[in-house]
Amino acid sequence: MKIISTPLELKEYLKNYDKTVGFQGNRSVGFVPTMGALHEGHITLIKEARKANEIVIVSIFVNPTQFLKGEDLDKYPRKDEADKKICELSGVDILFFPNATDIYDSDEVSILAPNVRGFVLEGTSRPSHFNGVLTVVMKLLNIVNPTKAYFGKKDAQQLNLISLMVKQFFMSVEIVAVDTVRENDGLALSSRNVYLSKEERKEALKISSSLHIAAKMLSSGIVDVKEIIKKMREILSPLEISYVEILNRDFEIIKEVEIGNTVILVEAKVGNTRLLDNIWL
Amino acid sequence: MKIISTPLELKEYLKNYDKTVGFQGNRSVGFVPTMGALHEGHITLIKEARKANEIVIVSIFVNPTQFLKGEDLDKYPRKDEADKKICELSGVDILFFPNATDIYDSDEVSILAPNVRGFVLEGTSRPSHFNGVLTVVMKLLNIVNPTKAYFGKKDAQQLNLISLMVKQFFMSVEIVAVDTVRENDGLALSSRNVYLSKEERKEALKISSSLHIAAKMLSSGIVDVKEIIKKMREILSPLEISYVEILNRDFEIIKEVEIGNTVILVEAKVGNTRLLDNIWL
Repeated sequence: MKIISTPLELKEYLKNYDKTVGFQGNRSVGFVPTMGALHEGHITLIKEARKANEIVIVSIFVNPTQFLKGEDLDKYPRKDEADKKICELSGVDILFFPNATDIYDSDEVSILAPNVRGFVLEGTSRPSHFNGVLTVVMKLLNIVNPTKAYFGKKDAQQLNLISLMVKQFFMSVEIVAVDTVRENDGLALSSRNVYLSKEERKEALKISSSLHIAAKMLSSGIVDVKEIIKKMREILSPLEISYVEILNRDFEIIKEVEIGNTVILVEAKVGNTRLLDNIWL
Repeated sequence: MKIISTPLELKEYLKNYDKTVGFQGNRSVGFVPTMGALHEGHITLIKEARKANEIVIVSIFVNPTQFLKGEDLDKYPRKDEADKKICELSGVDILFFPNATDIYDSDEVSILAPNVRGFVLEGTSRPSHFNGVLTVVMKLLNIVNPTKAYFGKKDAQQLNLISLMVKQFFMSVEIVAVDTVRENDGLALSSRNVYLSKEERKEALKISSSLHIAAKMLSSGIVDVKEIIKKMREILSPLEISYVEILNRDFEIIKEVEIGNTVILVEAKVGNTRLLDNIWL
């Protein structure tokens, strides 16, 4: 596995790659952008990329612009050595590991999330968060120029906005959405789970339970959004709920669930830790 | 000359182009984005593109997002048939002529000009203008995927911001800056010159004259920015001056002119028409 730390070096390396490895013809590049602290969720993304592409590139970059003031940028878990090992064992070809100064200039041109879809849900409590996400993703996609880029469904709104950006800016990458990976008891994997105490870890299960109940209600024929949300809020009630929403796949408000075109999303705080989860139905 | 009106059609056409024309190997694409109402300035850009590339693509798109409310979007000169003729005679291979609905969606991801350089000069009087310019240029560059893109130096700040965006977003296009074309009496060519009455046309010459005087002062050894600006303002004084600035090529304020690293910029209103001009020294 090759480790590269600057954008220009990576661009140059990719330009010469075919010659170096003697690869002929069109080769597809699968890209998995991450903020490190890799867990089974990331490994699943890498495996998907490995299955479908000749070259697999992973980036590790804790992107400062997507953290708001007072958020956990400084204490965000960093496990550089373990991450490198995981990438190597997962068959990654190139690990891109830039510094903030490699990616950002002073006085930056940046991406602004769309007025409606960028400032609901997660965008309400973290108003400039998605501007930072879209800016770094656009930069990374331009540096790597992948055939396919892999994102987890767990960050559903992020996935929706990135897909929107790729479409609206006529970018040629294909965005691949990969299912959320869960612990045996249902907790969605997240790098932020390490913040949870033993007690909080138990409380956090209310999030996946509420989604589980929603799915059960649906399978018993209940499609009324209000009714489902009411039940979910009961289950979640001891937690500090940021939002519980049932939307269509374009992230628009609906009254009745339409199977095959619905996302149910929860964000809640457990102790000081904000946790996201969702199901696609 | 092939005329294409939708982004997907253009992308598809370019993908098949090599096969269609039997072109082998790497071919370079020169791209000239315009808002139509083509004049000798645009033709110079096209000629430069023609000299250096196998394929020349011109776009004509009066971009609504770079006009502020109350500006001249509706009355901006449109000369579609003449423009097509000019492109054909100038040896353009592909004319890209999209509608606004081909380029813009509702609830758009957009580009935000940088805080400092995007909101000085032209950005002061037209605060969201450059957001619109950068957004459409990013889209067009992604659609056309050119080797080189050609912009006039007349829109100096636009050129500076586009170059900045290309660098900061690691885009692989090369931005080529082309000298301003002038009438015999010095007036910089602009599609907006058609707005000028005979009387205003004469008054407008004060803009290029002020730049001419500045160049003369420099060649006689005067490098003090304040002194030069004072003289320029005297010449411009009957006009409604938006700004007279002497900056370095990074658009930062300087005290003394350094030859080879300076831009002198003027914007003034003649009647109701905003006119820009500048010289690079």
